[in-house]
Amino acid sequence: MIIMKKDASKQEIDNVVAEIKKLGLRADISHGEALTVIGLVGDERRVNFQHLAVLPGVRETRMIEAPYKLINREYSDAFQDPGKSRVIRAGNIEIGGDSPVYIAGPCAIESREQLFRIAEEVKKAGAHILRGGIFKPRSSAHFWQGLGSQGDSEAREALSWLQEAGRKFEMPTITEVRGEYKAALIAEYVDILQIGARNMYDQDLLSTIARQGKPVLYKRHFGASVEEFLSFSEYIAVDGNKDIILCERGVLPIGKGKSFTRYTLDIAAVPVIKKESFLPVIVDPSHATGRRDLIYSMSCAGIAAGACGLAIEVHYNPAEAWVDAAQAITSDELAEIIDTCNRIHAVTVERRKINKTGV
Amino acid sequence: MIIMKKDASKQEIDNVVAEIKKLGLRADISHGEALTVIGLVGDERRVNFQHLAVLPGVRETRMIEAPYKLINREYSDAFQDPGKSRVIRAGNIEIGGDSPVYIAGPCAIESREQLFRIAEEVKKAGAHILRGGIFKPRSSAHFWQGLGSQGDSEAREALSWLQEAGRKFEMPTITEVRGEYKAALIAEYVDILQIGARNMYDQDLLSTIARQGKPVLYKRHFGASVEEFLSFSEYIAVDGNKDIILCERGVLPIGKGKSFTRYTLDIAAVPVIKKESFLPVIVDPSHATGRRDLIYSMSCAGIAAGACGLAIEVHYNPAEAWVDAAQAITSDELAEIIDTCNRIHAVTVERRKINKTGV
Amino acid sequence: MIIMKKDASKQEIDNVVAEIKKLGLRADISHGEALTVIGLVGDERRVNFQHLAVLPGVRETRMIEAPYKLINREYSDAFQDPGKSRVIRAGNIEIGGDSPVYIAGPCAIESREQLFRIAEEVKKAGAHILRGGIFKPRSSAHFWQGLGSQGDSEAREALSWLQEAGRKFEMPTITEVRGEYKAALIAEYVDILQIGARNMYDQDLLSTIARQGKPVLYKRHFGASVEEFLSFSEYIAVDGNKDIILCERGVLPIGKGKSFTRYTLDIAAVPVIKKESFLPVIVDPSHATGRRDLIYSMSCAGIAAGACGLAIEVHYNPAEAWVDAAQAITSDELAEIIDTCNRIHAVTVERRKINKTGV
Amino acid sequence: MIIMKKDASKQEIDNVVAEIKKLGLRADISHGEALTVIGLVGDERRVNFQHLAVLPGVRETRMIEAPYKLINREYSDAFQDPGKSRVIRAGNIEIGGDSPVYIAGPCAIESREQLFRIAEEVKKAGAHILRGGIFKPRSSAHFWQGLGSQGDSEAREALSWLQEAGRKFEMPTITEVRGEYKAALIAEYVDILQIGARNMYDQDLLSTIARQGKPVLYKRHFGASVEEFLSFSEYIAVDGNKDIILCERGVLPIGKGKSFTRYTLDIAAVPVIKKESFLPVIVDPSHATGRRDLIYSMSCAGIAAGACGLAIEVHYNPAEAWVDAAQAITSDELAEIIDTCNRIHAVTVERRKINKTGV
Repeated sequence: MIIMKKDASKQEIDNVVAEIKKLGLRADISHGEALTVIGLVGDERRVNFQHLAVLPGVRETRMIEAPYKLINREYSDAFQDPGKSRVIRAGNIEIGGDSPVYIAGPCAIESREQLFRIAEEVKKAGAHILRGGIFKPRSSAHFWQGLGSQGDSEAREALSWLQEAGRKFEMPTITEVRGEYKAALIAEYVDILQIGARNMYDQDLLSTIARQGKPVLYKRHFGASVEEFLSFSEYIAVDGNKDIILCERGVLPIGKGKSFTRYTLDIAAVPVIKKESFLPVIVDPSHATGRRDLIYSMSCAGIAAGACGLAIEVHYNPAEAWVDAAQAITSDELAEIIDTCNRIHAVTVERRKINKTGV
Repeated sequence: MIIMKKDASKQEIDNVVAEIKKLGLRADISHGEALTVIGLVGDERRVNFQHLAVLPGVRETRMIEAPYKLINREYSDAFQDPGKSRVIRAGNIEIGGDSPVYIAGPCAIESREQLFRIAEEVKKAGAHILRGGIFKPRSSAHFWQGLGSQGDSEAREALSWLQEAGRKFEMPTITEVRGEYKAALIAEYVDILQIGARNMYDQDLLSTIARQGKPVLYKRHFGASVEEFLSFSEYIAVDGNKDIILCERGVLPIGKGKSFTRYTLDIAAVPVIKKESFLPVIVDPSHATGRRDLIYSMSCAGIAAGACGLAIEVHYNPAEAWVDAAQAITSDELAEIIDTCNRIHAVTVERRKINKTGV
Repeated sequence: MIIMKKDASKQEIDNVVAEIKKLGLRADISHGEALTVIGLVGDERRVNFQHLAVLPGVRETRMIEAPYKLINREYSDAFQDPGKSRVIRAGNIEIGGDSPVYIAGPCAIESREQLFRIAEEVKKAGAHILRGGIFKPRSSAHFWQGLGSQGDSEAREALSWLQEAGRKFEMPTITEVRGEYKAALIAEYVDILQIGARNMYDQDLLSTIARQGKPVLYKRHFGASVEEFLSFSEYIAVDGNKDIILCERGVLPIGKGKSFTRYTLDIAAVPVIKKESFLPVIVDPSHATGRRDLIYSMSCAGIAAGACGLAIEVHYNPAEAWVDAAQAITSDELAEIIDTCNRIHAVTVERRKINKTGV
Repeated sequence: MIIMKKDASKQEIDNVVAEIKKLGLRADISHGEALTVIGLVGDERRVNFQHLAVLPGVRETRMIEAPYKLINREYSDAFQDPGKSRVIRAGNIEIGGDSPVYIAGPCAIESREQLFRIAEEVKKAGAHILRGGIFKPRSSAHFWQGLGSQGDSEAREALSWLQEAGRKFEMPTITEVRGEYKAALIAEYVDILQIGARNMYDQDLLSTIARQGKPVLYKRHFGASVEEFLSFSEYIAVDGNKDIILCERGVLPIGKGKSFTRYTLDIAAVPVIKKESFLPVIVDPSHATGRRDLIYSMSCAGIAAGACGLAIEVHYNPAEAWVDAAQAITSDELAEIIDTCNRIHAVTVERRKINKTGV
């Protein structure tokens, strides 16, 4: 990255950008309150940094070792207060701000009635963002794949319900985008675009979603290290979209015999990501465990570990949910979780303010 | 699945298909030499099989327990000789036939000259199918992503080189398809469409590729069990394409400290897949190990385990390959591997003929 | 297991035990406040439960499906209040009781002075139990293996320091037992015997340690599922020792590239174990992460998830610790952790009392 | 390590050894045909190699980076022909020599008759070494643990059967040693001492077994990387025993859903170990797969990958074996495997002789 001098002129910045283009790379310009930092997009191993360092207006050049550069904390610390994280806005909600954000709703939208009833309930319980699956990734090609997979008009209908419910109950909305062809359609209706765990590595999909210009909720693949997770989130950032909410949702369980949970929630990923990147990180206890009776404990653990939010699946009648019935909780349980988690947040927040990165 | 009587009429078959549609499912019809079997596409848990069993012309109905149904050996054993595998044709090459098939070529196509030189060399060494990456999946968004990622005209140019080289040296061709938007373009030029390991779970991409009407080489994700691998390959089959070549290319290594290989080649997946499915299975020792010095041993092991082919990366100057240089071998080494592997095949083929599934 | 009637006489119980012996099994007798339950030790698959069910004084017989039987919550729920856990006493400390227990001390005892200084500090910080390694399991045969490995007199000397420090600062003590030959020696001096993660599967060692008649702290192997962990803890229980404190300390990280932590703390193991067994479970954030800067967050997460204690490595000069320097914290940090964790416990304890198993 | 000059005198060697002792380390002396190399046992990070390099008779000093030093190929290549492996003798059998060695016998010894019948059969089938479990490691504390676990006289009786059968059918014998207390007893009767996968990390047990002065068959833990496996085998070597046969027997399977095999045979470990160490490596297809129908393919793959032998469980009536019945094969199948494997060996041996390390 190239750190410009405090008094660097626009022309000097433009000149650096032009030099970067000559090298066959692109520039990512970040204006901080006091100074401007230019990140390089492309293979900087071929770059002669000495040459860039002596251009007019350049204070210093620095190589970021990690494969994730534009989302790296080292990068953001260069142009803003060290330790400050990115706050992402969706409607009037701030993710990564001062208080935890709760995303809740049904796993899959089953009908207008089901969605509206759950939306109303989770709003009352204290949720901030409304989720609802329309294109469902499924482990079997023979299973129901969500209302959106039944056809274009069904997709538009379900998307409009989600939009309406979000407006009525004053919550920004989120749904998963499973393929490139549907990205633009979904972005017409929904406030946050979700990339599911199974698609984490799908770089063409990442680029397509990044370009819709909406915040992205990006879930870690169950076979990915934190380093890989951050490296692939860079595919979204290089397409000009840094409104990325990272989501830990569990990795493959280890060992012979029963693990008793669907995945293994990697709780340490929360503080690790906060040290490595300035992006906000949330926890999804529903998919991590696949068990309703563990949501309370894992939610508490997530907030205690420093997550800036939770994504939880809720149904008024969990046993009857069409998809992932075993992990849905009721809105009463959600209310209790939100209350406890807010209190845990209050217990830990002070020390985390002292420690700049919030760990 | 529904097994029709030997003398079932076309009308009886059509009638069964119509009944299946009424149930909200689709029918996959497989005509064997003597009889016809109809597979169900959709959630058969809601089906009343008793009702189907008494339709005219139906001999019996049978539920396949596994989540992979249309590619299941149980299914194919019902309409053809038990143990017989699917033979997939690309050009005049048969994959899954009597002798091992060798896919070889550069990891990435770097230039016309590089491709043609390697094509000529691997043909001489005994290779049957020419590979060459044009859209490369990379671990960093900042790395070079292949000639195809540089723009549409570059993509078409590289694709046409591959087509030409294939024609000139009489080898069908294969390249990886990384995103939905490029599938049709690539299918214009190339004989076999490859789905990379990182995209194994990407169900929308699978459907789009399936519909191009070309054989598909489908690689196992490094975090997927064999059961998941087979279950997701079903996403290709339900879209009407059963010309699927399965490829074992290694799973995540286990344990602290060095594994000394990039991935862990799951050699037992070869006979396991042959028992579970009638699809042919090959081994990719290059990506599995990431080490040129292990390709010989892993190729021998792959054929000894019963694989019906190998995919190997070759470069005339491995150290200078732009991508994955550490794993490329020379065509001399390829020739030696092909010779040894053919002899190992000869040693084991007789017993495998006796054991119907080739294990 | 065999549940006796409330008014079963001693003779009736003895008679059942005698019948069990005739079957080639042993009996594990648990007297609850109101009734007595007899567990079977041995392969109950060969047992005719019908025969036992009609013996005088027997109320009912029940087969426990899980491979862990004597430590199973189903077993303890039969003879005591459902949901009640085992409280293990070491000195005047209760593990598994009403408030979290903190185990702290140096990774390895380096000298009398080092131990006493740390002991004094951790006591002041609020720790309850003093830890200190004397026989260290190491990843290299060439590394220093702890004072105890230098010879018998060095072992006795270090053990007596630990005993003294425990007495002086009024903390029960704990150290790891790495081999059968040393078990009795260590049990002479120390209050709780620790079985390290690497020895989790070592069944002969488990039996030998079990027979020393002291509480055992039993750590999960990094490659073991929770089911295996519980199944192998049964090796301690069948030798008559149920004073087993289970310790989650992380499993193998998943994925290519950096995990940023030594292991992956499986935080969901805490509530899972509380549902499956009546044994108390603690968390070791030091070994799980191997990073001092993550201990605070992981400690908070552990208690928030319902752990009944923590084991933390402390050094007055972490950078100079002979072993695992990167993960030691100062006693000031410990004090802050204990304070925060106690407050998190207070926030969650009420709801956990309502939910019987504390999840 | 310290490489002595060709003409170094005994006194010069002794002098170097004395200097090493002064540094608080021990010396491992290896006499090659032409020269002598001295390995250091202990933490060489504290050693001033410059000081040792100028001692009389010293040609050069070299630091081995890997944590495994005395079993490192770099070490053996310094005192013998590069690429030459260690040949271990048990009776008149050579492991690591010119032709593959087959270890066969029952999983567990059930009776004198069972053992003798199987011994006779496997000898006829071409086996070289007789295996038979007497102390069985089991996944449940309630299962039968082998005849040896029933008492001392039963243990001696079973051990004497094994000794007798070995003599009668002219095969050296091998059995597993599960705990320190039994090591000396077993070493009285048996030619090769086996350390099971679950005990791989058990360093006190390793030291105790090493000191029995018999060859050791050392199995890789299912959660261990190759680096860890080699690092822990060093615990045997530092106690003066380098007659270590390494055994690959599978690691934890990856992914959700069925793996269809008990473990994942890490076939690439075979050539990797041959490059990293001069110790011989064999493959155990029985425990790796847990499935009789895969033994043929995995045996072929093991020898094709360059293993110097196989360990296979055989029973005249597999379905009735008391332990691991699903993985035992008949001696007829064994004969077929040995025949095929010898032919595969013949196909690959020439190239492997050219490539010095046999990869």
